[in-house]
Amino acid sequence: MPIQLYELAGRDDRRFSPYCWRTRMALEHKGLRYETVPVRFTDKDLIAFSGQERVPVLKDGDTVVSDSWAIAEYLESQYPDAPSLFGGETGHGLAKFLNVWTDRALHLALIKLVIADILDHVDPADTGYFTDSRTARFGKSPAEVQTRSDEDLKAFGRAVSTLRAALDGQDFLSGSAPAYGDYIVFGAFAWARAISEFALLKKDDPVSAWRDRMLGLYGGMARNAPGYDI
Amino acid sequence: MPIQLYELAGRDDRRFSPYCWRTRMALEHKGLRYETVPVRFTDKDLIAFSGQERVPVLKDGDTVVSDSWAIAEYLESQYPDAPSLFGGETGHGLAKFLNVWTDRALHLALIKLVIADILDHVDPADTGYFTDSRTARFGKSPAEVQTRSDEDLKAFGRAVSTLRAALDGQDFLSGSAPAYGDYIVFGAFAWARAISEFALLKKDDPVSAWRDRMLGLYGGMARNAPGYDI
Repeated sequence: MPIQLYELAGRDDRRFSPYCWRTRMALEHKGLRYETVPVRFTDKDLIAFSGQERVPVLKDGDTVVSDSWAIAEYLESQYPDAPSLFGGETGHGLAKFLNVWTDRALHLALIKLVIADILDHVDPADTGYFTDSRTARFGKSPAEVQTRSDEDLKAFGRAVSTLRAALDGQDFLSGSAPAYGDYIVFGAFAWARAISEFALLKKDDPVSAWRDRMLGLYGGMARNAPGYDI
Repeated sequence: MPIQLYELAGRDDRRFSPYCWRTRMALEHKGLRYETVPVRFTDKDLIAFSGQERVPVLKDGDTVVSDSWAIAEYLESQYPDAPSLFGGETGHGLAKFLNVWTDRALHLALIKLVIADILDHVDPADTGYFTDSRTARFGKSPAEVQTRSDEDLKAFGRAVSTLRAALDGQDFLSGSAPAYGDYIVFGAFAWARAISEFALLKKDDPVSAWRDRMLGLYGGMARNAPGYDI
């Protein structure tokens, strides 16, 4: 039986969790057979076996792992002969920094630009949950958050400019070939692409070229997933 | 003849360039013999042979390299049998991201907290240069920048909290052993320690424990350098 990845799904089968995208790319990188199980926000019972309430959840035989970082570590240690996600211990240590930065700086800047678009693409059963939980988090509704103010655009631009500088002289954040560090950051862009037509990057931005390379990996897996053509 | 490292020096031989500290730690990591040549801001002629005006400059036999990142890459390729600074290509790629983040987010947050203290510790010959160049950069004098406002303290706190999360579960940013990624970030703290008594970190902060480990490396080289006892 292949590995099962329980991942967040919206209407029209759009997969829009950045954390699930990290895991999906990691599974492709390792060349593992897997199938995905769509989970809506309100399908908590579907992943109750994991002992917690958030996706991604990975089920590999009798082993159940949740949390994208823990899943990446599990895949790396369980499948050491498949291509490495971290490229050794130093790469593992440094990927953690990128994981933290992405969760905090990049995601926070990005969600303000697309949060109402997310709401438009969640499954109808999730609309109330998403609206209420996000309104509680931001202190205002998704539509009120997603104004794309100059300040919010600038904050996102700063995060992108950090990525641009890191990509100077190398095709991937992990060097000449993609690895887990790239999947961490790509998760944010795959998430946005699934639910928003908003142009986050200019066509001539090297970060856009990197995103194109990522979309094309593994037979264009990410590009072929339901989403907007960016 | 040992490698020569031209590095920024202030009064009382305080070495306070974060970039020079990265190189110094990298030389120690590689176990290379080196001597340092103190350079003041206004000693541009001392490093004119490098074809540019900034330290660090490394002179290894007939080879001259400037820019801390280029120096680290040079040391890694020139001395491949000495302990690795990057731990392979993935680690090299990801260290670049940390380099960019440190230059932008961490340094910008830190300099606002200590810029007037720097002025107090530059060589008397550099006082005018430092005051004028930094006043031009910030649009106000070092004393006017260094107010340690709540906003500035919070910005630095956010950068530290990113480091704290990255250190969760590992002793060093590069994993269980220090490598160049750690030296990049440590350069900022070594810089501050050389010229400021301001307590940047609480004693019980895991980032403080990491800084202590860094200060103790290589026979306590950094701790024994002129600076404040933090």
